[in-house]
Amino acid sequence: MAHIGSSVEYGLHCLLWLVEPPETPPSSRDLAEFQGVSPSFMAKIMPKLEKAGFVTASEGIRGGYRLARSPDKITVLDIVDALEGRKPLFDCQEIRGRCALYGGKPPARQLNGVCSIHAVMLRAEQSMRAELAGTTLADLAGVVGRKLPAGFAAQVQTWFSDRAAARIEARDAPDTPARKRRRR
Amino acid sequence: MAHIGSSVEYGLHCLLWLVEPPETPPSSRDLAEFQGVSPSFMAKIMPKLEKAGFVTASEGIRGGYRLARSPDKITVLDIVDALEGRKPLFDCQEIRGRCALYGGKPPARQLNGVCSIHAVMLRAEQSMRAELAGTTLADLAGVVGRKLPAGFAAQVQTWFSDRAAARIEARDAPDTPARKRRRR
Repeated sequence: MAHIGSSVEYGLHCLLWLVEPPETPPSSRDLAEFQGVSPSFMAKIMPKLEKAGFVTASEGIRGGYRLARSPDKITVLDIVDALEGRKPLFDCQEIRGRCALYGGKPPARQLNGVCSIHAVMLRAEQSMRAELAGTTLADLAGVVGRKLPAGFAAQVQTWFSDRAAARIEARDAPDTPARKRRRR
Repeated sequence: MAHIGSSVEYGLHCLLWLVEPPETPPSSRDLAEFQGVSPSFMAKIMPKLEKAGFVTASEGIRGGYRLARSPDKITVLDIVDALEGRKPLFDCQEIRGRCALYGGKPPARQLNGVCSIHAVMLRAEQSMRAELAGTTLADLAGVVGRKLPAGFAAQVQTWFSDRAAARIEARDAPDTPARKRRRR
């Protein structure tokens, strides 16, 4: 399994669609279906982003997610840490203290400071994190925006508005078994 | 699980003990028992290091492992790649092509080049790898050597020589059940 998992990919893609927010904030299911990914997986991702303060959720039939911060104040590293916790790149087992010559009692001097192998791994982790911290959601949105065809942003807005309208219509119309199923 | 696993930690520690090679080259079991780690795990690590060209193994009662290259020609990255393969930091699922607006047929333009999220992850991976490539086994041995107490290197040599001598004595002496058990 890769160190940075697909929850980060899905989370970042969702946040990108919130940079130019749809008029009615999209639900977790809207975001999942718009992107062709699992709604149940998305339903685990969005609350973590809310808890970490990157989105706010509003309740009710018109409720959904919005960014809680300016996109230039959200870095890729923020999202990795929010969605996956701060996983170490390397988990030092401190085998330097187990040398047979110490007979189970390593001298304190030998365990002082970080093991030199661990120190290299920590520097590598720091480089990786610095690179992730150097790109913001605003930077990503800029790159993605330049690749999208003309008129795409308007189509996105329409797709999310239609979804919100369909939810409201479904609430106001008499229930049918098919509608009940769709709401599940 | 951490991205860089304990096989790398164990492997690097083993290689460090081979920088000033014991007179009789240590076996995989010697290296494991000297460091207080699992002999069966070590028996999987050393052949990978041999296959990748970092150690050579000699056969027989006096056989064991030696470095196959100068320690300043072995980097931490070399050992990570040899022992764990080249695992990606991030495994892009290309969800950019699944957008509902494309109806299953994303325009080629949208899939051109690397996804901008993937691109950030690749830069982070490159930074991490550059840092790991910047430290050699010789660098590590220098740091570790400065921390070891005076006379330690001689004790290490004696420990490995005693092990080799015990193996030869066991081969030449009549078998006893206890010796048979030790050889297993």
